[in-house]
Amino acid sequence: MSKENATRVLGAVLYENFELLDLYGPLEMFGSVGPELKIVTVAEEAGPVASVQGPKTVAEFSYADCPPLDLILVPGGFGTLMQLDEAGRLIAFLRERSPAAEITMTVCTGSAILAKSGLLDGRRATSNKQFFDFARVQSDKVEWVTEARWVEDGPFATSSGVSAGTDMALGIIARLYGTERAEEIANIAEYEWQTDPTKDPFTAFLNKGSAERALRILGTR
Amino acid sequence: MSKENATRVLGAVLYENFELLDLYGPLEMFGSVGPELKIVTVAEEAGPVASVQGPKTVAEFSYADCPPLDLILVPGGFGTLMQLDEAGRLIAFLRERSPAAEITMTVCTGSAILAKSGLLDGRRATSNKQFFDFARVQSDKVEWVTEARWVEDGPFATSSGVSAGTDMALGIIARLYGTERAEEIANIAEYEWQTDPTKDPFTAFLNKGSAERALRILGTR
Repeated sequence: MSKENATRVLGAVLYENFELLDLYGPLEMFGSVGPELKIVTVAEEAGPVASVQGPKTVAEFSYADCPPLDLILVPGGFGTLMQLDEAGRLIAFLRERSPAAEITMTVCTGSAILAKSGLLDGRRATSNKQFFDFARVQSDKVEWVTEARWVEDGPFATSSGVSAGTDMALGIIARLYGTERAEEIANIAEYEWQTDPTKDPFTAFLNKGSAERALRILGTR
Repeated sequence: MSKENATRVLGAVLYENFELLDLYGPLEMFGSVGPELKIVTVAEEAGPVASVQGPKTVAEFSYADCPPLDLILVPGGFGTLMQLDEAGRLIAFLRERSPAAEITMTVCTGSAILAKSGLLDGRRATSNKQFFDFARVQSDKVEWVTEARWVEDGPFATSSGVSAGTDMALGIIARLYGTERAEEIANIAEYEWQTDPTKDPFTAFLNKGSAERALRILGTR
């Protein structure tokens, strides 16, 4: 059976204070592929995990009992900061699981965690524009791309902030299942897919003082 | 204290097989407003509620114990069908709570439920393009708008399919908190907000055979 027909398992990683759309933009698209792609949710411990915005998602599996993963999706969000601890279990989970996965994806500040793990060494990657330096300081061995909606490099794909993850997800679906399928899924979701990963409408916000404004807003949540 | 400074409570309604992005596109944006807007999740019974795509969200409140709501958000999705029962508790919940709310919003096929409740009688409203007739047949007393990203009419706002809910949410944030705030939130989320509710990129899909294709894809989940 070719990989096109086999079932892939996508592990959506949850941690306290993940950003809602980082996770759910991609899951909307991946969840529309069909029976060839199954989504599971995983966190340090199974059970409800709260987002930055409040609503809680149930993690079905803990890192310890999570089934083998073909695709891994790591969202960003304010909780990223707590996951950067070198002894942190998320970094250990990624070091253990990512080498066996077909593609490991991050959205927004999620790339900071992946960079810290060392897995992105020698790879091109991007991150949220307004918090770009937050990712950049995690590793000088990553070739950070400041102008990109998303970046694919081998088994890794990293996107810019929040909404960019949705475009990346469709890009990965196109790669795995064909462009027609990706377009069909975007149309059903009435989503105007930005297909060009190099077109970045938010480069103007790159660490430009506006980060202060963003922090003010985020901090008041 | 003016309403601008008071805290509004947004009730996100969950039911089995809701569409992920119908809910989470808007919640990303509303959840970024700040302490002036608090999100609560509500369902027939409190506890985990599964989406069409699989992942489960925790409902904090049941319809019976839900606090007063200023804003109500009803997603669409395959589960809509099960909520159309005239004796259904969601319709009863909307009839009870919507008149006291400042704005009741639906995304995608969620407008079918609101139409069935009678609350949209005499109002302009829209729905998912590829399943438009599914909403239309629920009430001939609604002025159905076939070309709209979203429609605001008095205390109601209804959006087109899935992704359109995110644009509507930003439109409502602009109405309640000002355009600058909405733009700031969109920029932080690196989201290209489509600000014009009358511009509809997906009218071409209006009940055009492609619904069959959509159903095929959706049905295989």
